[in-house]
Amino acid sequence: MEASCCEVSAPDLAEFFGAHLQERVTLGNVTLDQLKERFTDPRSPTLPISVDEYLDWLGREVLPYAVNVSSKKFIGHMTSALPDFMPELSALVARLNQNMVKVETSKSLTFLERQLVAMLHREFFPGAERRERIQDPGHVFGLVVSGGSSANITALWNARNRSLLALGLTKAEILECGAYELLRQRGYEGFAIITSPLAHYSIRKAASLLGIGERNVLHLKQDAAQRADSADIEAKLEVCRNRRLLVLAIVGIAGATETGTIDPLEEMGRIAARHGTHFHVDAAWGGALIFSDKHRRLLEGIQHADTITLCPHKQLYVPQGISLCLFKDSQSVHASSVHSAYQGRHGSFDFGQYTLEGSRPALFLCLHAMLCIVSKRGIGALVDQGIEATRFMADVIERHPAFQLIGAPEINILNYRYVPRHLRHKSSHSPEENRVISEAVKVIQERQFLQGKTFVSRTEILSARHCSEKITVFRVVIANPLTTHQDLRDTLAEQLEIAAETETHAEEMSS
Amino acid sequence: MEASCCEVSAPDLAEFFGAHLQERVTLGNVTLDQLKERFTDPRSPTLPISVDEYLDWLGREVLPYAVNVSSKKFIGHMTSALPDFMPELSALVARLNQNMVKVETSKSLTFLERQLVAMLHREFFPGAERRERIQDPGHVFGLVVSGGSSANITALWNARNRSLLALGLTKAEILECGAYELLRQRGYEGFAIITSPLAHYSIRKAASLLGIGERNVLHLKQDAAQRADSADIEAKLEVCRNRRLLVLAIVGIAGATETGTIDPLEEMGRIAARHGTHFHVDAAWGGALIFSDKHRRLLEGIQHADTITLCPHKQLYVPQGISLCLFKDSQSVHASSVHSAYQGRHGSFDFGQYTLEGSRPALFLCLHAMLCIVSKRGIGALVDQGIEATRFMADVIERHPAFQLIGAPEINILNYRYVPRHLRHKSSHSPEENRVISEAVKVIQERQFLQGKTFVSRTEILSARHCSEKITVFRVVIANPLTTHQDLRDTLAEQLEIAAETETHAEEMSS
Repeated sequence: MEASCCEVSAPDLAEFFGAHLQERVTLGNVTLDQLKERFTDPRSPTLPISVDEYLDWLGREVLPYAVNVSSKKFIGHMTSALPDFMPELSALVARLNQNMVKVETSKSLTFLERQLVAMLHREFFPGAERRERIQDPGHVFGLVVSGGSSANITALWNARNRSLLALGLTKAEILECGAYELLRQRGYEGFAIITSPLAHYSIRKAASLLGIGERNVLHLKQDAAQRADSADIEAKLEVCRNRRLLVLAIVGIAGATETGTIDPLEEMGRIAARHGTHFHVDAAWGGALIFSDKHRRLLEGIQHADTITLCPHKQLYVPQGISLCLFKDSQSVHASSVHSAYQGRHGSFDFGQYTLEGSRPALFLCLHAMLCIVSKRGIGALVDQGIEATRFMADVIERHPAFQLIGAPEINILNYRYVPRHLRHKSSHSPEENRVISEAVKVIQERQFLQGKTFVSRTEILSARHCSEKITVFRVVIANPLTTHQDLRDTLAEQLEIAAETETHAEEMSS
Repeated sequence: MEASCCEVSAPDLAEFFGAHLQERVTLGNVTLDQLKERFTDPRSPTLPISVDEYLDWLGREVLPYAVNVSSKKFIGHMTSALPDFMPELSALVARLNQNMVKVETSKSLTFLERQLVAMLHREFFPGAERRERIQDPGHVFGLVVSGGSSANITALWNARNRSLLALGLTKAEILECGAYELLRQRGYEGFAIITSPLAHYSIRKAASLLGIGERNVLHLKQDAAQRADSADIEAKLEVCRNRRLLVLAIVGIAGATETGTIDPLEEMGRIAARHGTHFHVDAAWGGALIFSDKHRRLLEGIQHADTITLCPHKQLYVPQGISLCLFKDSQSVHASSVHSAYQGRHGSFDFGQYTLEGSRPALFLCLHAMLCIVSKRGIGALVDQGIEATRFMADVIERHPAFQLIGAPEINILNYRYVPRHLRHKSSHSPEENRVISEAVKVIQERQFLQGKTFVSRTEILSARHCSEKITVFRVVIANPLTTHQDLRDTLAEQLEIAAETETHAEEMSS
C-alpha cells in the first residue's frame, strides 16, 4: 500500500464525493491487489462503537477508494450523476421503511406504486384501457423489481407459463405438475428462447434458472448494423419445430448493453404475434427514449411487446435498485402468481403474490419524484443530450487516425478501438493482428481505470466487417448531463498518452 | 374520502414519521377503498415542478396514509424501528450510487462487501478456513441479494445444479443442455424438494421458476411443536426414489414466517449429509439468533447447511432491501455462475457472474454499520429482548379467558386467537365452531388495522390440537426494542374492545 493512500482524511472524502462536479473517477494508482489486502479480517466486532467513529473510519479507509460514478469523465458504465434530491429521498425511503410486499406494511404507497406503473405503461402502450383498472387488484400493469436481471427473469417466467396456457393447460396444472412434466405430456422436448446475439447475459441467467440449456437459446443472425435480423426468425422457429421445442418467447433488445443497438421491434413483434408467441423487449437501457420527442421513433414497435424490461436506475437517473417489468395485458401477470395464507392472498393488493422478490423498499418513490420533478420533457432533454454527445465523440474518433469506430452509434453507447501505429494503414487486419489490437485495447482500458482520471469500459463483440472472431473494443456510455465535449476529448487524449507510453515501453523492451 | 383525512398537513407528517416513539400505526379509519380513489390518474407530468412542491404534495397526500412500521405498537410484521443512523447511511449509499455488479463501479466497496459476507459466514460456520480466501476471487462465502425470496431462489438454483454435478455431470453440460434434458438422460422423472410444511412461499416461487410442480415439493409431517418431523425424511426420500425424482435439496426453516418455529436442523443436516443431498436452511428471520449467547443453541445444526438465507432487513435492523445467501463451501457458488464479455469475466471480482440480480446498490453498508456500531453483543441483546417480551405476551394471553394461545412461542413470533364468549368453555371445538372463531379473528384483525392504534397480522395454520382444518389465528412479531409490556397489553385490550363491539352489534342484529 502506498503511504499516500492512507493519508486521505474524512474532509477529503467529502470533497471527493460531495459534488458531482468533482473531476476524478478514482483515487489514482491504487490497484485492486493493494485494496484487497485491507479487507481480510472476518471477525465481527463484539463491542459497540459510535456512529461518528464508524463514519470516520468509512470516510478514511473505504470511500476514497470507491468509484466516483457521478464523475463527468466516467463514461464507461450505465451509472451517472443523479439529481441532488435523490439522496434525501433515499433517506426518506429508509426512514419510512415501508415494505411493498403487502398493503399492511405500505398502505397508500401501494396505490401510488400502482399508479406510477400505470403512468409508465401509458407511455409504452398508449391505446390500452387503464383508468378503471389502475386500482383494481385483478389488474397489474407491471411490477417494480430491484434490477433489470430480475425484470428479465420475471418476464420469461411469465412467458413460460403463458406458453403452457396457450397449449390449453391451466394455471392450476402448471403449479401442481410443473412446467416440464406438462411439456413432455404434450410431446415437446424442451423450451426455447429466440433472441438477439446481443441479449443481456441475464437472459442466459433466466434460461439457467428455468432449466433451459444455452443451445436452446437461439441467437438470430445480425444485420450490418448489428441488429437482430428479423428475417431469420422464421428459420429459427422452424428449427424449434423440428427439434420439438416450445418457443416461450422471442426477445428483442432496445439498447443493447454493449452496443446500444435497437432490434427491429416492429417486425419482431409482428412475427411473434403471428405465431402467438410471447414477445419480450429488454428496454433496460433504451426504454428511456420513450420520453424523447426526437428519438422515440427508434422504439417503434415496442407497443407490440407482451412484457418490457425498463431500468430507471440506468437512464432515468434514480439510484440503483429500481427496475420494472411492464405487462401489456394487465391480467397476464396471473400466469405466474404464487399465493400464501399470511399475505398475497387471492384478490388482495399485496404485490408479493406476483413479484419474484418478496420484501422490498418503496424505492419507486425516487422514480415517481423524477417523473414529477424533472418531468417527461426534462428526461427527454437528458436523453437527447447524451445521444448528441455520443455523435460528437464518434465524429472525433472517426477523424482520428489512431482510433477505429466500430459501427455508427445508434443511441448513446459507442464502440471503438485503438490501433497501434504499425497496424494503422491497412484496410483490414488478420486474426493475429486483431489479437494484437485487442490486447492493446485491454492494456489501455485497465491502465486508464487505474489512473482514475477518465474511464471507459471494454467488451468483446463480433463485428463481421473487422474479423470473424470476437474483437475487444472500448465501450462508451454517455448519460451524464455534466459531461462536456472537452471531457470526451480528454478521455481520448488520455488513451493516446497511455498508448504512447506503452508503445515506447514495448520498443525499449525490444531494443 | 373523509374530510379529516385531507387536513393532515406536512408538519403533521414530520411528527408522524419523525420519531420512532410516535404511537400510532396508521391514520385511523382510512379504508383502502377510500385511498385507492386518489391514485387513478395514469398521466405523467409534461412539465417540471420544484422539489419542494413535490415533497409538500408527498407529505400531504401520501405519507400520512402510509404505515408507521416503526411504531412500538406495530407488532404484526417483520419490520421494526431502525437505528437513527440508517436514513443517513441510506442517503450516503444513494449519493455514492455504486453498482455492486462489478468492481469497476464499486472498487473498495466490493472488497468490503466480501469481508462483510465472510464475517457473517464465520458466525454460522465457525470452523471453516477463510482468511486466505476472503479476497480470492475463486472463493465466494455468500451473496448479497435484495431479499429473502431472492436468497431462497439463489440457494435452490445452486442446489439444483449441484445435484446434477453430484451425478457426474459437468457445469459446461448443465449450461449447454439445461437441467431437464440431463435429468431425463439419467433416467429421472423430475426434481423434488423436501421441506417443512411451514416453508416460506418463496420456496414455491423457486419451485415454479425451476419448473418443479408443487406435488414435487414434499412437505414433511409436523411434530407436536409444529416443527418438521425429521423422522419423516427417510419416508419422503423413499417416495422420491420410487417416483424417480432427484431431490435437489432438503430445506429446513429457522424461524418460520408464521409461527417462528425452528426445525430440527441437527438431525435434518445429518440425514441430508448421509444422502449427499444439499441442505438449505431458510434462516431469514431466525438467523439473527446467532448473535444471542442465550438463544444461539436454538440454531444448533445450522452449521451443517450448504446454504443459508439470512435477512438483515428483518431482525438485524437495517432498511428493506438487504438479504444474503451464505455458502458453506466457498467454491460451490461456481455451480450456478453465468458470465459475459463486458463484466463478470471468469476470475474477476465482479459479483454479477454469481447473483440472480445484476445491478444493485451498496446497501450492504447498512449491515456493516449495524455490525460495527451496534456490535454482536448489541444485536444479541435486541434479540433477547424480543423473545422475553413475546413470552410475557404469551403468558398474558394464556391467563385470559377470551384468548387461546396456539402453541408456545419458540422465539419472538406467536399465534393466538380470540374465542367468542359462547364458545369459550369447551375443551375442543367442532369444525363449524372453528370457522366461527376464525371469522371473529379475521373481523377483529381487519378492524384493528383500520383503527390504526395497534396492529397484529393474521394467518391460517394447521394446528392438529385444535382442528383438522386450517384455523385463522393472530400473528404477533415482536422485534421493536421500544415495545413495552404495556404496549402488548394495549394491543390485546383493543382487540377485546373490538370484539365486544362486534358481539354487541351481532346481538343487536339478531334481537
